Amino acid sequence: MKIRNRRTDLALEARELWQESAGKTTRLSGVEAKDTLREGYPVTTVHILDHRGQQALGKPPGTYITVTLDALHHREDGAFGRAVRVLAEELTPLLPSCDPGAPVLVAGLGNRAITPDAIGPQVHEHTLVTRHLVAQVPEHFGALRPVASLAAGVLGTTGMESGELIHSLCRTLSPAFIIAVDALASRSLQRLCRTVQLADTGITPGSGVGNHRIPLTQESLGIPVIAIGVPTVVDAATLAADLMDLDELPRLSADRDLLVTPKDIDSQVKDLSKVIGYAINLALQPGLTIEDLEMMLS
Amino acid sequence: MKIRNRRTDLALEARELWQESAGKTTRLSGVEAKDTLREGYPVTTVHILDHRGQQALGKPPGTYITVTLDALHHREDGAFGRAVRVLAEELTPLLPSCDPGAPVLVAGLGNRAITPDAIGPQVHEHTLVTRHLVAQVPEHFGALRPVASLAAGVLGTTGMESGELIHSLCRTLSPAFIIAVDALASRSLQRLCRTVQLADTGITPGSGVGNHRIPLTQESLGIPVIAIGVPTVVDAATLAADLMDLDELPRLSADRDLLVTPKDIDSQVKDLSKVIGYAINLALQPGLTIEDLEMMLS
Amino acid sequence: MKIRNRRTDLALEARELWQESAGKTTRLSGVEAKDTLREGYPVTTVHILDHRGQQALGKPPGTYITVTLDALHHREDGAFGRAVRVLAEELTPLLPSCDPGAPVLVAGLGNRAITPDAIGPQVHEHTLVTRHLVAQVPEHFGALRPVASLAAGVLGTTGMESGELIHSLCRTLSPAFIIAVDALASRSLQRLCRTVQLADTGITPGSGVGNHRIPLTQESLGIPVIAIGVPTVVDAATLAADLMDLDELPRLSADRDLLVTPKDIDSQVKDLSKVIGYAINLALQPGLTIEDLEMMLS
Amino acid sequence: MKIRNRRTDLALEARELWQESAGKTTRLSGVEAKDTLREGYPVTTVHILDHRGQQALGKPPGTYITVTLDALHHREDGAFGRAVRVLAEELTPLLPSCDPGAPVLVAGLGNRAITPDAIGPQVHEHTLVTRHLVAQVPEHFGALRPVASLAAGVLGTTGMESGELIHSLCRTLSPAFIIAVDALASRSLQRLCRTVQLADTGITPGSGVGNHRIPLTQESLGIPVIAIGVPTVVDAATLAADLMDLDELPRLSADRDLLVTPKDIDSQVKDLSKVIGYAINLALQPGLTIEDLEMMLS
Repeated sequence: MKIRNRRTDLALEARELWQESAGKTTRLSGVEAKDTLREGYPVTTVHILDHRGQQALGKPPGTYITVTLDALHHREDGAFGRAVRVLAEELTPLLPSCDPGAPVLVAGLGNRAITPDAIGPQVHEHTLVTRHLVAQVPEHFGALRPVASLAAGVLGTTGMESGELIHSLCRTLSPAFIIAVDALASRSLQRLCRTVQLADTGITPGSGVGNHRIPLTQESLGIPVIAIGVPTVVDAATLAADLMDLDELPRLSADRDLLVTPKDIDSQVKDLSKVIGYAINLALQPGLTIEDLEMMLS
Repeated sequence: MKIRNRRTDLALEARELWQESAGKTTRLSGVEAKDTLREGYPVTTVHILDHRGQQALGKPPGTYITVTLDALHHREDGAFGRAVRVLAEELTPLLPSCDPGAPVLVAGLGNRAITPDAIGPQVHEHTLVTRHLVAQVPEHFGALRPVASLAAGVLGTTGMESGELIHSLCRTLSPAFIIAVDALASRSLQRLCRTVQLADTGITPGSGVGNHRIPLTQESLGIPVIAIGVPTVVDAATLAADLMDLDELPRLSADRDLLVTPKDIDSQVKDLSKVIGYAINLALQPGLTIEDLEMMLS
Repeated sequence: MKIRNRRTDLALEARELWQESAGKTTRLSGVEAKDTLREGYPVTTVHILDHRGQQALGKPPGTYITVTLDALHHREDGAFGRAVRVLAEELTPLLPSCDPGAPVLVAGLGNRAITPDAIGPQVHEHTLVTRHLVAQVPEHFGALRPVASLAAGVLGTTGMESGELIHSLCRTLSPAFIIAVDALASRSLQRLCRTVQLADTGITPGSGVGNHRIPLTQESLGIPVIAIGVPTVVDAATLAADLMDLDELPRLSADRDLLVTPKDIDSQVKDLSKVIGYAINLALQPGLTIEDLEMMLS
Repeated sequence: MKIRNRRTDLALEARELWQESAGKTTRLSGVEAKDTLREGYPVTTVHILDHRGQQALGKPPGTYITVTLDALHHREDGAFGRAVRVLAEELTPLLPSCDPGAPVLVAGLGNRAITPDAIGPQVHEHTLVTRHLVAQVPEHFGALRPVASLAAGVLGTTGMESGELIHSLCRTLSPAFIIAVDALASRSLQRLCRTVQLADTGITPGSGVGNHRIPLTQESLGIPVIAIGVPTVVDAATLAADLMDLDELPRLSADRDLLVTPKDIDSQVKDLSKVIGYAINLALQPGLTIEDLEMMLS
């Protein structure tokens, strides 16, 4: 069995790669998957059940949900609202059950100044933060869940790992769980800025665009971490390997960090960040509507 | 003796107000002040020595240094370099003596999205962060002091007080001291964006544009806090009181939060943030020059 | 009769000033005014009929409509949509009747880098430009009116007066009329960022924040110019004159360009620009809805 | 002789492609080239002399100068100043000789909102515009050449081709010549954001990232057009063709507009724009120094 050495952060793609290598007829033990359609958007759920699944796909056990948002980019009528609802509905069952008055931390990872890495910081800007309102004006906002949020910055601009910063905040905020949003790498040109992955497994080192070193997981933080990721780049070496059907990543002559992105990456990141931010808000505050959010956030 | 009820964050102005009220001949006990000229820039140092000075000026005991940067705004030749050097030289003796390998935290307070309150976040962008470099590449960067930096955001965008965030980080970083940068209110139209105040007393609640509630002081954090502030606004009521020679702040009919700012506030905040950021860098890393910073930061 | 020497760009305020000076009982000849309420927003229409009205109010003859958008700032439910519709409905009868296939130029005046002067450039970003679509893909877009748009920049960033640039474009585009958007000065703190003035008289030198020197009027350009303005500043001297009930503008001691703005000017300018941009789009393209615009512009 | 169908806007690369195809020993008629080193930066000058050269390289006759700025990206000491001087010195002899009081137009082409296409708009921000100063304050600024500048926007944001806008302005400004700055496509990963091409041939349709349709050339405008371009993207199909040694551009499966860019494209575009803007300023205003520009532009 040929193991392809390509970089992907999507469980969906890891499973595809496994199947390309193993042949269609082999059954992948320790993994369950199903495809559905919700509000017109394809949804694939991959459950990695145990260490066999983990070994085959290279991802920790847990649930990985991929929503494909093609319609959003065709700017179909109502696409924004439908995309927000689908993501909120898929996100909701991933959230740990806990006291509705327990605080939650939404962490936007990545570098605001590098467009394909700016998903996390931009989602932070669309997150409805309520922790201060619930505490200061409980008569008006007592029904909301207390939410704090942060764009965790990057090592080069703060001198601190995002993970250090979030560990530090957890001691002060004592959140019930964390939602961490980050850019991902994909192996597929088609999936760039077109899919969103939700996972209940947190974020592990070496993944994503920014190569975090400190894990953000239940194991390391003591509380559940829900990860939301969007593939915004294919690295040029992975693209080349795919195009040339290589088994190994080639060393590209430029010897530089090169990324393949859509031409309209700036507007795509902007659109997706709003969809994800609103979906997080609806999942965390089930009493609110998109119209409420438009008014409270604009 | 008439006590004027005007809002100022500058010790210099508090002293002026006291003297206007008390008359020129009265001696202000518990306060020492001196004026000098450094590289062409006027520098006023006010020492509040004890509780008498504290009561008269409404500021905690400590050293307050005000540098007037008029020449910077006339864009005189070499004005940028001279301003950076003056601020660095005045800042250096305020810094606590400590192991040069001990980490320091530079905190930019205020709201990036409100121009006159964006001094802190913009200074953060000009701060040379080195903590990760010193740790990861000690053979190249071992001679630098480890510096971490953060734009502390505001309650409305994070759900956390800047003070909470900084308290939280202190436990993780264990800095030797903090430099906190913030926008201030002045009572004088002339001083808007023209002066920088350095103080070794930290930042107390209710000051500045953003009205922080949690003190950032040695008392609350257990380590020294050096405060750097720039008056960027006069509140409209203070302006009115001054113009009309009132003893009380008038209630302006608009019943809204109104600020008086220079017309070119956006470019002034940008210029001053670079000057202050570079001065902090030179004071923390005495081995570097402005040219080094231009290369490392651009 | 005392003529107050205060700076206002609003016909509504010029009329108020006249009445304060002349006394309530005197009738203002050459001027007709009426107040209505539309979708909950107060609308005042002032017609300056002739040279008597022009002399009394210091504005050229024409129609000046002021819509007061207080509800928008209270973030009431549906306030955005109602504000867009009111402005579109008031704007529509001001537009010259012309061939629906004739091109229109929307010009955003002012300086993007000075927040209270950025209304024009930000409205430009919300304008649906269609001229190229109508020409290139007539089978899909032939039903739209061809619209070109431009943020006209400022003298200091282009070396050209906005007026020169627009005159120049008119020769190339041959528009049927121009809609020009600009920031205004008001004498009233309450009106800052709360009112929008629509006028069919173009823009004359010396008005607004940016002090344009070249008129943008039917007389100078040969085509009608509809002006849309928002008061975003009170100059500090006007404020002082009002507060102190002076007949002359005082020389403020600071001898600097100072402005009085709301504390949240950045977000207010952002909100108003979207409302105005969308209203222009609905007035120019009567076949479209707000939902269509959300999809075509985001 | 195999003609490779790869997209490049650099004459340097067109010549390399020709030589790869034709073999090293064949002499390329109608083309002269030479390599030099200036201030440590490699400079290659390609003269396309006649129609034979034009046919071989697919570029109109003229002078094409490529400066390789590797040292800039290594942040070597003094690299910024040296890069500005090299570009200014190479640009100066390309400028048409004309009355020093004749106006010049600097046009930044491209889309501010797409990072790799934002070179032109960002250079515009570093251009010293003087036309209004020379006219209004001749006693102070009479020694400067009158320069106007414009970020020409893009079809989708204005409804006008950049070329239409510039044609239109030429009638108003009557410039002696135009300097037009734009992003280019390269076939080489190494050259991305590392080279600047200066040419006296203007800009022809279909080149660059933005695919302008209207030529900006002496022929179309009646005045000389100096083009300054920076390769910021390789299109993914060209990369694939290079990697796979194909003679034809492959159709990538994604069927989307994909670009290969450096990971740090945002900061690279920012750095290069400042270098180019300053070089233009020095070439147009030989009496000024970099220090003067820092003071006048910051």
